[in-house]
Amino acid sequence: MRLAAAEVFTPLAWRDGALALVDQTLLPGEERWLRLTRVAELCDAIRRLAVRGAPAIGIAAAYGLIVALLDREDPEPDPAVRVARASAALLATRPTAVNLRWALDEGAKAYATLAGRPREEQVAGMLGWARALHSDDIERNRAMAEHGAELFAPGDRALTHCNAGALATGGIGTAIGVLGAAFRRGRLAQVWVDETRPLLQGARLTAWEMQRLGVPHRVVTDSMVGALMRRGLVDRVITGADRIARNGDVANKIGTYSVAVLAQHHGVPFYVAAPLSTFDADTPTGADIPIEERSGTEVTTLAGTALSPAGSAGFNLAFDVTPAELVTALVTERGVLRPPYGPAIAAALGRG
Amino acid sequence: MRLAAAEVFTPLAWRDGALALVDQTLLPGEERWLRLTRVAELCDAIRRLAVRGAPAIGIAAAYGLIVALLDREDPEPDPAVRVARASAALLATRPTAVNLRWALDEGAKAYATLAGRPREEQVAGMLGWARALHSDDIERNRAMAEHGAELFAPGDRALTHCNAGALATGGIGTAIGVLGAAFRRGRLAQVWVDETRPLLQGARLTAWEMQRLGVPHRVVTDSMVGALMRRGLVDRVITGADRIARNGDVANKIGTYSVAVLAQHHGVPFYVAAPLSTFDADTPTGADIPIEERSGTEVTTLAGTALSPAGSAGFNLAFDVTPAELVTALVTERGVLRPPYGPAIAAALGRG
Repeated sequence: MRLAAAEVFTPLAWRDGALALVDQTLLPGEERWLRLTRVAELCDAIRRLAVRGAPAIGIAAAYGLIVALLDREDPEPDPAVRVARASAALLATRPTAVNLRWALDEGAKAYATLAGRPREEQVAGMLGWARALHSDDIERNRAMAEHGAELFAPGDRALTHCNAGALATGGIGTAIGVLGAAFRRGRLAQVWVDETRPLLQGARLTAWEMQRLGVPHRVVTDSMVGALMRRGLVDRVITGADRIARNGDVANKIGTYSVAVLAQHHGVPFYVAAPLSTFDADTPTGADIPIEERSGTEVTTLAGTALSPAGSAGFNLAFDVTPAELVTALVTERGVLRPPYGPAIAAALGRG
Repeated sequence: MRLAAAEVFTPLAWRDGALALVDQTLLPGEERWLRLTRVAELCDAIRRLAVRGAPAIGIAAAYGLIVALLDREDPEPDPAVRVARASAALLATRPTAVNLRWALDEGAKAYATLAGRPREEQVAGMLGWARALHSDDIERNRAMAEHGAELFAPGDRALTHCNAGALATGGIGTAIGVLGAAFRRGRLAQVWVDETRPLLQGARLTAWEMQRLGVPHRVVTDSMVGALMRRGLVDRVITGADRIARNGDVANKIGTYSVAVLAQHHGVPFYVAAPLSTFDADTPTGADIPIEERSGTEVTTLAGTALSPAGSAGFNLAFDVTPAELVTALVTERGVLRPPYGPAIAAALGRG
């Protein structure tokens, strides 16, 4: 499939009074857009990963509050109740990424300034807020890309896990934003794309984004990372994050931790790119981050086809935690943070 | 699907004047047997992994020499030429596993004692030799299982990668033979089955064997190994091998090396079970083992379905090398070998 050559592909937008989302479970084979007019539809879309990626989930949830205000089928007359219920329902969809909670907390603050106003004003005010949050993510991505690209050097072969690109955010992406900027500056020769089982966000989505960016790349199984590093074929690793604890521990897609251990073993720098909305000052360490366990059938089947014999159950942790000591640097919109991360993160969050 | 409750499922046998092989690319969904009467058919079956696993390939190649002698469509009148050509063709199918070369070398020795005899005597003699080699593998597996089970302790949760079971050998398997024996002795509580992308020998074949053995098991993605170990859920790892160098370096299915690094990082013992036919005294170190590179489409497609967008190529190393220093013990039919492996292997091979 081919997409129009927009500079950045945006996976979600407020359009014609509804939230439009591209269904990422069907990419890259099919570009199907969903038009969501009820909060329950959005919750379902988040749960089944039609929209995924920590920043993108946060932005979708922000627009979800306007969906709640506009829902014509909802019998609830009080808009404040609608917003509160929508917020609770959205928050319950996925536990690990903190951007969801961050966006809903911001939404509560924004709504507090509008409560009691006429409904049209509330809608307009919240839409302005959500669009600003979306634009803000685009700017954060750009700033991260600028800072992160400085970490790369000509000829570099970088490995990335899962998808932390335009499809996972509102803008050019976190890790992939950095890779794109490094490539444009002549500081990146090739990307190794980890396929990222079970749901293949790397093989499906990151490969597709690499094509759009024109970056030379090869898709590899997650199990090949060690062999590539041992052969000296990986110069750097960069991933996104779903939540970063106060001490720098990073929750991200399952398999990230294995890659980080392998990177340390081979002396390969391991970077994480994430906006400050991914940092959780209320979470002291990675041990305090709730890790979503998804259905084992995501492991034992693929696109409806059984991979394992009936009677063999899968086990499916959706995320893992990479301890701060395995992270060489954290790339944020306010610059590159280096260990010790505790004070660096506190300073970046404005608490230092 | 269900199979008759034979004690051991044998994936290959000499039957009615031909080599019968179960097509392992179709398991566990379908049990389809191939009847091979030409060497080219066997070479194709080995290349496309209808028969796979280092010891099983060796046994199949042994029977392949009788296939060559009996081939009614081959215009070559000289049986010695037929055997030599078959041996060369079979040897060229796959480079990494050494059991193939070992079996063909043994076959050449066996044939040398029969050359010049009437063709019927040659066939009978070679068939006796191949059957003895097959029986010998069954006995080696049993002995390995006895020795290896002693390494386990009640309550153990073991992880295995790829398939080193009945389907990969002539008997009960190497690593899976050990796991089965440990389970029967009350020294194994559960097995984590690595799915083993790209061809899913773990999810398809090992899960199926675990069911047959009645061993509690869960299938996980290869990327989950680090997270399981960090949670303390893996007590031991055991895999098979395709070739073990004189110094103890182990070539095995891609991903084995990553698992071994992760095991070391977490202090989890990492065992390799292999018969002495897998040890190659002519290969000094792992750096000397040829690593097969297979088509990238094995990574970017699954069962004919594209996983990645067209235009994104895969890279597909079929094996990797685990250095001896990451291996806690080598389980052989002559006992458990411990570091330093150089002298231990030399002694086991009768050269010490």
